[in-house]
Amino acid sequence: MKKSPVMKTPKGFFFSVTEAAIKKPGRKDFALIFSEVEASVAGTFTTNAVKAAPVQLCAQKIKAGWGQAIVVNSGNANACTGRQGMTDAKNMVAKVSGHLGISTSLTYICSTGVIGTPMPMQRIIPAIGPLAGGLGNSSFDGVAKAIMTTDTFPKIASRTVRIGGKQGVIAGICKGAGMIAPNMATMLCFILTDIAVEKKTLQAALRSSVKKSFNRITIDGDMSTNDTALMMANGILGNEPLTKNSAEFSSFQEALDDLAYELSRLIVKDGEGATKLVEVIVKNAWNEEDAEKAALAIANSSLVKTAIYGNDANWGRIMAAAGYSRARFDPEKTDIFFNKVRVVRKGVMNNKDKEATEEIKGKELKITVDMHAGKASAKVLTCDLTEDYIRINAEYRT
Amino acid sequence: MKKSPVMKTPKGFFFSVTEAAIKKPGRKDFALIFSEVEASVAGTFTTNAVKAAPVQLCAQKIKAGWGQAIVVNSGNANACTGRQGMTDAKNMVAKVSGHLGISTSLTYICSTGVIGTPMPMQRIIPAIGPLAGGLGNSSFDGVAKAIMTTDTFPKIASRTVRIGGKQGVIAGICKGAGMIAPNMATMLCFILTDIAVEKKTLQAALRSSVKKSFNRITIDGDMSTNDTALMMANGILGNEPLTKNSAEFSSFQEALDDLAYELSRLIVKDGEGATKLVEVIVKNAWNEEDAEKAALAIANSSLVKTAIYGNDANWGRIMAAAGYSRARFDPEKTDIFFNKVRVVRKGVMNNKDKEATEEIKGKELKITVDMHAGKASAKVLTCDLTEDYIRINAEYRT
Repeated sequence: MKKSPVMKTPKGFFFSVTEAAIKKPGRKDFALIFSEVEASVAGTFTTNAVKAAPVQLCAQKIKAGWGQAIVVNSGNANACTGRQGMTDAKNMVAKVSGHLGISTSLTYICSTGVIGTPMPMQRIIPAIGPLAGGLGNSSFDGVAKAIMTTDTFPKIASRTVRIGGKQGVIAGICKGAGMIAPNMATMLCFILTDIAVEKKTLQAALRSSVKKSFNRITIDGDMSTNDTALMMANGILGNEPLTKNSAEFSSFQEALDDLAYELSRLIVKDGEGATKLVEVIVKNAWNEEDAEKAALAIANSSLVKTAIYGNDANWGRIMAAAGYSRARFDPEKTDIFFNKVRVVRKGVMNNKDKEATEEIKGKELKITVDMHAGKASAKVLTCDLTEDYIRINAEYRT
Repeated sequence: MKKSPVMKTPKGFFFSVTEAAIKKPGRKDFALIFSEVEASVAGTFTTNAVKAAPVQLCAQKIKAGWGQAIVVNSGNANACTGRQGMTDAKNMVAKVSGHLGISTSLTYICSTGVIGTPMPMQRIIPAIGPLAGGLGNSSFDGVAKAIMTTDTFPKIASRTVRIGGKQGVIAGICKGAGMIAPNMATMLCFILTDIAVEKKTLQAALRSSVKKSFNRITIDGDMSTNDTALMMANGILGNEPLTKNSAEFSSFQEALDDLAYELSRLIVKDGEGATKLVEVIVKNAWNEEDAEKAALAIANSSLVKTAIYGNDANWGRIMAAAGYSRARFDPEKTDIFFNKVRVVRKGVMNNKDKEATEEIKGKELKITVDMHAGKASAKVLTCDLTEDYIRINAEYRT
């Protein structure tokens, strides 16, 4: 696997963006991804009981494991929109498929934006012709811009992997989940590759990557009504389709893991109002579930996050969050580090608060909790909690 | 049960407060509650795996169900202080008991404040003599003031109940849990009564009241390392000790429920940085557990809380929070109200956002989610999330 210095786009994919003035005019808010051939498609979706219409639709389509197009809009999530929402989503899929001349079963749909407002179909429908007709007018980067909501920068990354002597490309874009840790603003991620991958293998590979990336930047990775990660593998590279038994599968998985982690990191870095990126590592936990529970509780604690914002090495809040996480551990055996500074030794303070405060002042911080209980570990990314988060979210809809 | 216009204190209890300069000088931070006779004692404690030394000690003592004194300090939580913390707590109990001339088993201890800093015993020990000697120098209200941390006002309430032709008094004080909803600042509550109550009955009555009051103002009611509710019934009224079979038990329980609810409401009202009190009611849920899960998820959602702060009737965030709560319900049957304004009818918007926005502008708001799934309901109190919360918690320790 190679991280290329310039962004690469896999072969055989085309892009289009246009303005449909879905929430308001003045920006490209409607995008299309198209593969010149049918592709294997994998997907993971929110487990929220309230699923947006597009999510319900994609979850049905994904069962076949094939696809060729993804249509996506920002400005409106088409969630909590009842039967009309489902009718609208199906209508968008039908119109896009008609223009592209493909079966509706091959067109996937995603929406992000405000919940509970009907889709402005009177503006969307007329934009579909120009959108489909404009394929090639934009880039993957252009799509990354079109799907932004409160994101402050587009999120895009790529990797190359050698498969059968040829260079395959995996590229991905995503949009942020607002305040990452405790809540439900939508995360969308699209990953494209020209490497041929057998569809069940693709689904397993994506699920595995998402588990250690996007699912470790939120409470449980699937809070929103719209969260979706879709991956298309169109096989234009011409390799024998990868299966778990392929010699090159592990490098493929490794590249995908790495790509997904980089994208998820960009989301946290762009957390609403965030000034710091914080990596919470719980190590030597009883098992991985305990490690993950504790790391998520710490990463989601408003008190921990505000303390970090205030440059306060308030490790008591970290210990208490681990304590209520239901992870099994003995506080009196536990060490806590801010970067390399051990602030807690065996559950009590280590008189290093001054040194720790200096560490917190940086733009990036690593909090390590060593439970000395077992051998499992988990890593969760989060950010600090600031006044700007409140301002952004108190004003988001109005 | 009667809510008296003036605060009443049950007979046979004495109070003392003094300054021990535990965190810093300049305020009375050390308090003592004493019953002239041995009393039945009940208690509920944090279920956090990280329990402060005083909590561990009280949890042991409560098994006997008897007590006569409660010593309490603010400024230091004596949590994450290891063996020294336990030694210090026991030492405080021993010194207080010695001055009062009672068995150490009858003295309970509570602490609240910063986590992880050793107790300043050099200042605490000399203050114990004056504290015990000063019994009668203060009131229950004085103790309420002494236990405040980031609270902006003391919290105190009382009820009277007629038992056997005589008027019994139940009075309670508490201190706030910082930001109520998502976290772990300490909640302390002390309830005193002169009504005689059999000790097992007292424990069951307290647990029942706490379940519907203090446990419904936080994620699960027991997040902090120090949360404690203690209740003493000294029987000075002279009634036959109440049991569950007593004719007057139900009025006693009702008064206690009502008192605990009022105290918990005061805590939310004083939530850090809060400008609004919000009651989240989930009704017609499948069962009580589902109702509680959904109500807590909504009440704890940072996005819901910031929207309320911003006077935005963003009901989509409420629906999404219910959706990720794991409560069983059908979004397409669900109605949502802001006070009496129905913003959502059968899962979709009801074009009442403007009217709802007017409702939100008040100081108190009632959000009702009607699931039309069953007959159970739950009520959770919360507050809005503001920039001031961030400021208070970013600066709390420094």
